[in-house]
Amino acid sequence: LKISLIGAGNVAWHLAQLFEKNNHTILEIYSRDLSNSEKLSRKLLCTQATDDLNFSKSKAELFVIALADDALEDCISMLKIPEECIVAHTSGSQPIAVLKNLPNPKGVFYPLQTFSKHKEVNLAKSVLCIEGSDKPTEQILLQLANEISKNVRLVNSAQRKILHIAAVFACNFTNHLLTISQEILEKENAPFDLMKPLILETIEKALKTNPKSSQTGPAVRKDKQIIQTHMEYLKEDKDKQAIYQLLTDSIEKMYK
Amino acid sequence: LKISLIGAGNVAWHLAQLFEKNNHTILEIYSRDLSNSEKLSRKLLCTQATDDLNFSKSKAELFVIALADDALEDCISMLKIPEECIVAHTSGSQPIAVLKNLPNPKGVFYPLQTFSKHKEVNLAKSVLCIEGSDKPTEQILLQLANEISKNVRLVNSAQRKILHIAAVFACNFTNHLLTISQEILEKENAPFDLMKPLILETIEKALKTNPKSSQTGPAVRKDKQIIQTHMEYLKEDKDKQAIYQLLTDSIEKMYK
Repeated sequence: LKISLIGAGNVAWHLAQLFEKNNHTILEIYSRDLSNSEKLSRKLLCTQATDDLNFSKSKAELFVIALADDALEDCISMLKIPEECIVAHTSGSQPIAVLKNLPNPKGVFYPLQTFSKHKEVNLAKSVLCIEGSDKPTEQILLQLANEISKNVRLVNSAQRKILHIAAVFACNFTNHLLTISQEILEKENAPFDLMKPLILETIEKALKTNPKSSQTGPAVRKDKQIIQTHMEYLKEDKDKQAIYQLLTDSIEKMYK
Repeated sequence: LKISLIGAGNVAWHLAQLFEKNNHTILEIYSRDLSNSEKLSRKLLCTQATDDLNFSKSKAELFVIALADDALEDCISMLKIPEECIVAHTSGSQPIAVLKNLPNPKGVFYPLQTFSKHKEVNLAKSVLCIEGSDKPTEQILLQLANEISKNVRLVNSAQRKILHIAAVFACNFTNHLLTISQEILEKENAPFDLMKPLILETIEKALKTNPKSSQTGPAVRKDKQIIQTHMEYLKEDKDKQAIYQLLTDSIEKMYK
């Protein structure tokens, strides 16, 4: 497949290189900031970097739009691509209908995964969510997805939105709590490494049984005295204290 | 060592069996609810279950108090043990001074880990925090700890409290977010299994690099449009919506 990518962020970064590894050709990479598309194109065999959304002469059979949602609509309104190629976005929260003003066959290619540029990701074990505006498009995207992942699902726009919300809690917010934990330790010159065995056991237990039945700690034990001590310690950091309070209340409510 | 345990909850459950595996003798298990101490004593070779805190004739050399903090003070005030044996508690948040009314040598034996009865825990890889009221007591507890874990630390009461607060964020609250994620999915008949590759990658990345630099998602990207869509979806569940809002604000603040 001849593929072009709109976007040079974390998702585009990983997808472009994976597509190429699977013997597809990456023709073009667009980024508003040319230096970003150039950085990614240097990682690839024969890709042209550009900051121009006019692709009317492109030979690509598939355009993958991997942009932050805030940038998506503007980009789609300015994008010029040949009518016969497939256009797919990679967003968890945007319906396929966001592409409706384009006459092309449309799709979604959403990896349910977290990407950072300098961390390899095993997409083979990641869930890849596919949607197509018609059966032939769906088939082409499914085939491309199956080359990359062993866990490909047909997921419509409404279901995908739910997955994305669940993922924000399970991934983004979870990571933020680890960051807060790191900050609490570093403020007292204790290494974050001390938490690692505990974090690994927490996750292993939650995934082996299920998180609801794995809950431990002062809130589920209703250990008011500890909670009070912790709230007192956190009083100089109102933001962390508010998070402690809200999550403690939420746990107490769930297990009352 | 002849050891008796005060408490038959999750921590006592695992410690008693581990001590016995390391050739120590568990003489007695106390629980306010006799059926609980009996349940645990049946897992052990020759342990007496009791609901009586009068151990004045006990032959134990070490009493380990593994109780919820709310129950700790009452128990200590009623506990009768021979004066020469060591008494240690397992609490993250209680100082060693909580034992001050006892004339015995005192200590703390705090496993920085999450325990549920029906899940095996690898304590060998867990951090074990030790404190002693005097050098000989410290040495005995260190030796016992080193038999169980490869990651034993001398940690004083103030440091231990910080570790416990950091652990509540990294473990208890993290697990609760996974539960919320599970609830969001199950409400829409989607399996929680879909999240597992994402959760594993999130944790692997956070522990390999560090959580602060691993943050992804709409909040750190300041993707207001997605955040708005998610808040709208969550409006029928005010508790989840409040958590989404507070953690999103906290992430935006941290990376502004």
